[in-house]
Amino acid sequence: MLKNVLDNKEDYQPSLSIDCVIFGFQDNQLKVLLIKTKHSHEWALPGGFVPVDEDIDDAAVSVLYGRTGLKGIFLRQFATFGAVKRNSIDFSNRVLNFYGIPLEEGKWYTNRFVTVGYYALVDFLQAVPQPEGKNEIVEWIDHNAVPDLILDHKEILDKALETLRMELNLMPVGYNLLPEKFTIPQLQKLYETILGRKLDRRNFLRKITAIGILIKLDEKKSNVAHKAPNLYSFDKEKYEEVVKNGLTQGW
Amino acid sequence: MLKNVLDNKEDYQPSLSIDCVIFGFQDNQLKVLLIKTKHSHEWALPGGFVPVDEDIDDAAVSVLYGRTGLKGIFLRQFATFGAVKRNSIDFSNRVLNFYGIPLEEGKWYTNRFVTVGYYALVDFLQAVPQPEGKNEIVEWIDHNAVPDLILDHKEILDKALETLRMELNLMPVGYNLLPEKFTIPQLQKLYETILGRKLDRRNFLRKITAIGILIKLDEKKSNVAHKAPNLYSFDKEKYEEVVKNGLTQGW
Repeated sequence: MLKNVLDNKEDYQPSLSIDCVIFGFQDNQLKVLLIKTKHSHEWALPGGFVPVDEDIDDAAVSVLYGRTGLKGIFLRQFATFGAVKRNSIDFSNRVLNFYGIPLEEGKWYTNRFVTVGYYALVDFLQAVPQPEGKNEIVEWIDHNAVPDLILDHKEILDKALETLRMELNLMPVGYNLLPEKFTIPQLQKLYETILGRKLDRRNFLRKITAIGILIKLDEKKSNVAHKAPNLYSFDKEKYEEVVKNGLTQGW
Repeated sequence: MLKNVLDNKEDYQPSLSIDCVIFGFQDNQLKVLLIKTKHSHEWALPGGFVPVDEDIDDAAVSVLYGRTGLKGIFLRQFATFGAVKRNSIDFSNRVLNFYGIPLEEGKWYTNRFVTVGYYALVDFLQAVPQPEGKNEIVEWIDHNAVPDLILDHKEILDKALETLRMELNLMPVGYNLLPEKFTIPQLQKLYETILGRKLDRRNFLRKITAIGILIKLDEKKSNVAHKAPNLYSFDKEKYEEVVKNGLTQGW
């Protein structure tokens, strides 16, 4: 991808990139999709560049599709990063080194790249991580155990997580992150994992029920020794409605 | 400003601009600071370009200072706009025309400019609108009576207002927008104006008091015929704390 841009730079929006923070939920962990090459010990967020004939939001959709094989996913622009430090030899050398591209090719690349950050919530089991070529690996990594990231990608990841936490107050979260049928304790665990703290069981039950997006199924969770908890699913229509109109009636 | 960029384009981040939606509150109206030149019937949001040696957030601070004479103001990045339609002859012609610059000078300018949107909440009485040169006028205009705006500036303004409305659920608003001493009805009117709907008096009083940011002063509003309402001010320290930590305890 970078090589392609270096060779055909007139086809891309100058000095602009996109970075995607792709979240999935598995084994009670909030995981992030990260990329590594054999050339560098650092990891990176999946990202890309913006073709001159493509909206930036569509370019983000392409990055997400390219890395996970998924379309129609919850994907939201959350911030644009344009500190002066992004304009440095060190920054561009680390990017070129990451991809194993000889440094002299990258002269124009020492300009600052402003990057637009998007975050996505995807179904861990549906997503198929896609490396670009054989020198890359793509992996889901627990957000609490993220290794060294290239450039300011840690800052971008932290901001995405902060936005997601804040948006828990504005919209429901869970669709795409949980299996189709789930228990209230599973849903609570998802919220606890995102927020990074324990929640009171009864308070959570009361608040999540009050939103009116849950359907209680006539099934219980199997493979459970004692009292089997009820299974639920999301009422997709009401869920979408609340995402659109906002969670809090507010003022 | 545009002329300066046309003449010294290597000093600026390529194909990137900034637009600021500056809100003020006066006469029970939420007002927006807009710019007009003698060359065009359309109005524009105040904006600018990003010097290569300046963070984008600092460039936004400069735009705000340049247009209002104010510093240390609540200013927040809310979205980045990069639709393909921003890459068009029509778009660039309208920009050049707005500033009365001959079209042939603007060839490089027909590339798409991605623009980063910021919104600011400023004290109407402190702000001194600053035109750039004698061909420009800068005016506060009621957000309900905004005239034709250039390019996609209406879309940017609408998104800023939508963000401000949403953020009323996450943080208190009022500091910088109201005079230092104000009544609860004045504060309620501000909220109603931003939200575009009436609020229940008792509910509002209960909710706004519960936040714990108001100081009841030992003064009443003067020049009021009947029962004079109490005056309040914000507890600045607590206000900042709530802005930082978020309004809703949420989950």
